Amino acid sequence: MRRSFASDNNAPVAPEIVQALLDANLGDAVGYGEDAWTARAVERFRQHFGERTAVYFAFNGTGANVAALSSFLRPWEAVLAPKTAHLQTDECGALERFSGSKVIPVATRDGKLRPGDLPPHLHGHDVHFPQPRAISISQATEYGDVYEPDDVRALAEFAREHGLVVHMDGARLANAAVALGTTLRGASADLGVDVLSFGGTKNGLMLGEAICFFDPALAGDAAPFVQKQSMQLASKMRYLAAQLDALLSEDRWSRYASHANAMAQRLYARVRSIPGVRITRPVRCNAVFATLDRAAIARIGREFFFLTFDESLPEVRWMTHWATTEGDVDEFAACIEREVRGSA
Amino acid sequence: MRRSFASDNNAPVAPEIVQALLDANLGDAVGYGEDAWTARAVERFRQHFGERTAVYFAFNGTGANVAALSSFLRPWEAVLAPKTAHLQTDECGALERFSGSKVIPVATRDGKLRPGDLPPHLHGHDVHFPQPRAISISQATEYGDVYEPDDVRALAEFAREHGLVVHMDGARLANAAVALGTTLRGASADLGVDVLSFGGTKNGLMLGEAICFFDPALAGDAAPFVQKQSMQLASKMRYLAAQLDALLSEDRWSRYASHANAMAQRLYARVRSIPGVRITRPVRCNAVFATLDRAAIARIGREFFFLTFDESLPEVRWMTHWATTEGDVDEFAACIEREVRGSA
Amino acid sequence: MRRSFASDNNAPVAPEIVQALLDANLGDAVGYGEDAWTARAVERFRQHFGERTAVYFAFNGTGANVAALSSFLRPWEAVLAPKTAHLQTDECGALERFSGSKVIPVATRDGKLRPGDLPPHLHGHDVHFPQPRAISISQATEYGDVYEPDDVRALAEFAREHGLVVHMDGARLANAAVALGTTLRGASADLGVDVLSFGGTKNGLMLGEAICFFDPALAGDAAPFVQKQSMQLASKMRYLAAQLDALLSEDRWSRYASHANAMAQRLYARVRSIPGVRITRPVRCNAVFATLDRAAIARIGREFFFLTFDESLPEVRWMTHWATTEGDVDEFAACIEREVRGSA
Amino acid sequence: MRRSFASDNNAPVAPEIVQALLDANLGDAVGYGEDAWTARAVERFRQHFGERTAVYFAFNGTGANVAALSSFLRPWEAVLAPKTAHLQTDECGALERFSGSKVIPVATRDGKLRPGDLPPHLHGHDVHFPQPRAISISQATEYGDVYEPDDVRALAEFAREHGLVVHMDGARLANAAVALGTTLRGASADLGVDVLSFGGTKNGLMLGEAICFFDPALAGDAAPFVQKQSMQLASKMRYLAAQLDALLSEDRWSRYASHANAMAQRLYARVRSIPGVRITRPVRCNAVFATLDRAAIARIGREFFFLTFDESLPEVRWMTHWATTEGDVDEFAACIEREVRGSA
Repeated sequence: MRRSFASDNNAPVAPEIVQALLDANLGDAVGYGEDAWTARAVERFRQHFGERTAVYFAFNGTGANVAALSSFLRPWEAVLAPKTAHLQTDECGALERFSGSKVIPVATRDGKLRPGDLPPHLHGHDVHFPQPRAISISQATEYGDVYEPDDVRALAEFAREHGLVVHMDGARLANAAVALGTTLRGASADLGVDVLSFGGTKNGLMLGEAICFFDPALAGDAAPFVQKQSMQLASKMRYLAAQLDALLSEDRWSRYASHANAMAQRLYARVRSIPGVRITRPVRCNAVFATLDRAAIARIGREFFFLTFDESLPEVRWMTHWATTEGDVDEFAACIEREVRGSA
Repeated sequence: MRRSFASDNNAPVAPEIVQALLDANLGDAVGYGEDAWTARAVERFRQHFGERTAVYFAFNGTGANVAALSSFLRPWEAVLAPKTAHLQTDECGALERFSGSKVIPVATRDGKLRPGDLPPHLHGHDVHFPQPRAISISQATEYGDVYEPDDVRALAEFAREHGLVVHMDGARLANAAVALGTTLRGASADLGVDVLSFGGTKNGLMLGEAICFFDPALAGDAAPFVQKQSMQLASKMRYLAAQLDALLSEDRWSRYASHANAMAQRLYARVRSIPGVRITRPVRCNAVFATLDRAAIARIGREFFFLTFDESLPEVRWMTHWATTEGDVDEFAACIEREVRGSA
Repeated sequence: MRRSFASDNNAPVAPEIVQALLDANLGDAVGYGEDAWTARAVERFRQHFGERTAVYFAFNGTGANVAALSSFLRPWEAVLAPKTAHLQTDECGALERFSGSKVIPVATRDGKLRPGDLPPHLHGHDVHFPQPRAISISQATEYGDVYEPDDVRALAEFAREHGLVVHMDGARLANAAVALGTTLRGASADLGVDVLSFGGTKNGLMLGEAICFFDPALAGDAAPFVQKQSMQLASKMRYLAAQLDALLSEDRWSRYASHANAMAQRLYARVRSIPGVRITRPVRCNAVFATLDRAAIARIGREFFFLTFDESLPEVRWMTHWATTEGDVDEFAACIEREVRGSA
Repeated sequence: MRRSFASDNNAPVAPEIVQALLDANLGDAVGYGEDAWTARAVERFRQHFGERTAVYFAFNGTGANVAALSSFLRPWEAVLAPKTAHLQTDECGALERFSGSKVIPVATRDGKLRPGDLPPHLHGHDVHFPQPRAISISQATEYGDVYEPDDVRALAEFAREHGLVVHMDGARLANAAVALGTTLRGASADLGVDVLSFGGTKNGLMLGEAICFFDPALAGDAAPFVQKQSMQLASKMRYLAAQLDALLSEDRWSRYASHANAMAQRLYARVRSIPGVRITRPVRCNAVFATLDRAAIARIGREFFFLTFDESLPEVRWMTHWATTEGDVDEFAACIEREVRGSA
């Protein structure tokens, strides 16, 4: 298959991660996370995010979000999230089905939640309404944008005043941290985030996500049972742990994400001045959003795989990843230019 | 870590499976199962189990059982299973929580369900009772035993007469098929099983299970949504598919399981006549169950890792896998003999 | 307690309904709906709504909505409803918790859903999104307004084109039918509604709602089990049935609702020209919505009980019912006038 | 309908309860339990059960049990109950569906749980098993028997040692208290019970049950939300409250239950020495269980309505209630005698 610009989950596994898997494949290991690799990976997460962090692993992003939130939400408690959040639009109601808790979608200007968006959803104590108990924000956002540190701090402050937990869907936290020029912690825990879904799959892993409770009281004694009941407890846990440990070692998380982001910048530079291509979102991480002619989209789509995010405009998403090369980008940009011109 | 006799999920990944993963790691691939590896793996399952088989992959055994059953059970429909079933005792109520459906535990003599066990649980149509809609049996059983073909046929006939679906938890189907000297299909689909959870993790894979609907109407249009909602839909599906495809190619499933079973037979031969060791279950697959002195168990446990299945007797489970060597078995058997004698 | 203008559920039970309860209280009756009263009430519903109607009773409005929708929704199927719907804002996420299905709130101009509001929520078949399977509209609306027959027909046509079921929350269907000058059926089933939650509690009953499937295939064999599992199956069913039967006999439903509506019109006539009182919604049924001075609201609230619907404006709801008298209205209106003047 | 011996829920409403309903039907009242009748009823329950008792009302017995248990059980926590418990056999899996929690059925000799039955179900902390968190016992039992005070005390002591909550399904607590010659509290709270489902429907009410948390921490801030989400929150709460208040006033609970029990004793006295009728359970409350000829059962069933509890024996249940008269019993006993003789 030619390079895909559809999603960072179309990427292969990075060679260093493969090596970590091979290294972990020696002899027997106790199941369900009682092994040395898991202990080491948990320790690694604590180095990155703080010593008190309670860490659990999950198979995929939906599993991580659902298990993270279900560890502390009660079924009549709701989570406020942008109506464009992955949690609301891409997880097929898994949270509702598994936990009974409701995601309350909040309209936002650009996919980013702001304190001012929230008050209409805070009804006060009333048995007739699901009680908002958490907010959930995606860092990076589903539009490839990032929350500035002050944005998150303001949300966290608002949350604290109103007794809300701050959950961060960090499926692409690495891309956001790189974009902000900060650490993983600097883009999450240090800003007042309480619970993080940390993504590995979209940053070079075969599979594997982590749930990090910066306030271990939110995990309580519930998190291990939730991990099991939500079908996220791997028996051969070492193979998730080894990947995540490797990702957080030797700045790999940063190298992979930097490269992905740089490729998106390169693509942006190549296409932004093509007449007929309108870039619709800030290019901060590893995605370029654009509107262009519908016929051109169809023709480009015959050569490269990518997604039309909003059919009505139409708005496309072009996404890069750790393995996207400069050559891939240039070839893709050339194709875009050619086909858009063909429509003119 | 020294060889573990605790579980076949303590094993590493078989080299041929690792190679399949490496082979799959070339370039980009569409996510969520729209890739060539998944298509090939599905085709492979159909070669083994029949052309009409509807196939879905899952991360782990609990996920496979829950997604398989939730695809056709409605929340007021129940599944009858031996009270010793993994579904009842080892999945932390995941089915109940995810689907609302109830597992009704049935007392059995030896972990094997028989038609005669079922009538007391069939109440006829009555809104006050959850309606039995399926039976679930484990092949091999949780006690390392197997259902003979006629056993399953009799259950399937009973099920058909009473409008029940037959689900097989085949976490160790390969071990059972080898023990019965038959094919995977010969130990499941051909006997009247309707839905199978097929296990890969315990037979040499890193992770990966398959849900096989021999009657595709049971999958209906529900199965893909259930797979997603149950958090079992891998974005980088090729890495599950490639492993399962490799396992079902070149008789690997059979070679790994044969070896595991043979190692259990070797262990059985070595320990059955040790005074003080009483073998408590038929040794048909890759597990040996025994009762022995509590103090001896503690001493053996200082050298080798294994599980005490029933603390009250106490009854231990010693389990072998694809990577257990003759030397491992002999060393372990010698340790058992030494420590049991020490108790005498 | 002085007359309440807070809700029609603050009303006592109408004397004719009390008499029906007394009449039903003779001797023994089989439980769970196998009694003569239930048979008679079901027959009565069929006279009103059509012979094919499948009828089930429920204790309260939330129970009726949840049981109605859960009878045919699968857990990955969603219901589209105005974001102001009772189902979305007043049932504490009961549907999500009980069935796993998600209510997708749709922004509307005035609490009424229109076909044009729906397309952005129809994503096509995609496992990542809950699949819209039904729309739910309230007749009368939560703002005391009604859908015109053509409004509902247009929605039903849209629904049929897109494979959606039309659910009507008819907690106040009687008030709407009276406002439209039509029958119960004329305001629901005849317009293309598929499933109705019919309200009795707010129209003179002690308690009791009915679920009417105009398409019995939507009830299937599921509805009785859903009624039981959702804790809505009364053992002494005759006491729900007798009330609902009485309500649908001798035009009581219409008399009670007409009276309630007329009292709202009287209140509207009395207060609409008071300077400082702005009527904010069409007064079609038994509610008057208005904005007025916050201090006046507080003072009126010391004499009469009513609700502030939207604290931010503030917008109040004044509601009448079968037992509200002209004198009650005049007294209340005088109080409003006095207190609003006091603020001027 | 002739007097029913099928269930105490076949009875009409007692005249004093009807009067209480009529007395409550004056003017308006605030909804959802903020009314004077509810306050008074709660106070009445506290007089009976202790000042600290947290009290919530429910529509029916299944609702009461599910809401009581769901207020404190987390979805991975299980409740141990006799396999004959109403919770396990007669509530259609409502607890599992609503809360995700699992009822673990425990085999008992006679429908009564004993401390010695429990240890095999206590696995210790392990994510693979649902964690037992409560035991649930029915007082009176489903077989018309009662737990002696010392029986309950022993269970409560065991529960306390193992961190288990004691739930009592008191659908027929009044009958049990009368049988034991004690108060309602003496048959429940004083023996170490933590949470009670108190039944009104089967003891002369139209409908209405109460959930009593003797340890208010078990209700926490959860109970009101659970009551709402479980569709048990009545809008016109006064009509539940007035009945329950009346039942607990002037010893009505005791008079009704005494009468019902006495009628069962009378029936027992009349039939126990009929050749061919074998009484199978202790007659302590308002039920007589017996085995007799299948043809005789059919003939008696043509004249009187009652249930065959266990078709396989066959074992019938004959149940009396507050309205059963001596004449009813004598007529029924004469019928039994005649028809059983006819079979001889």
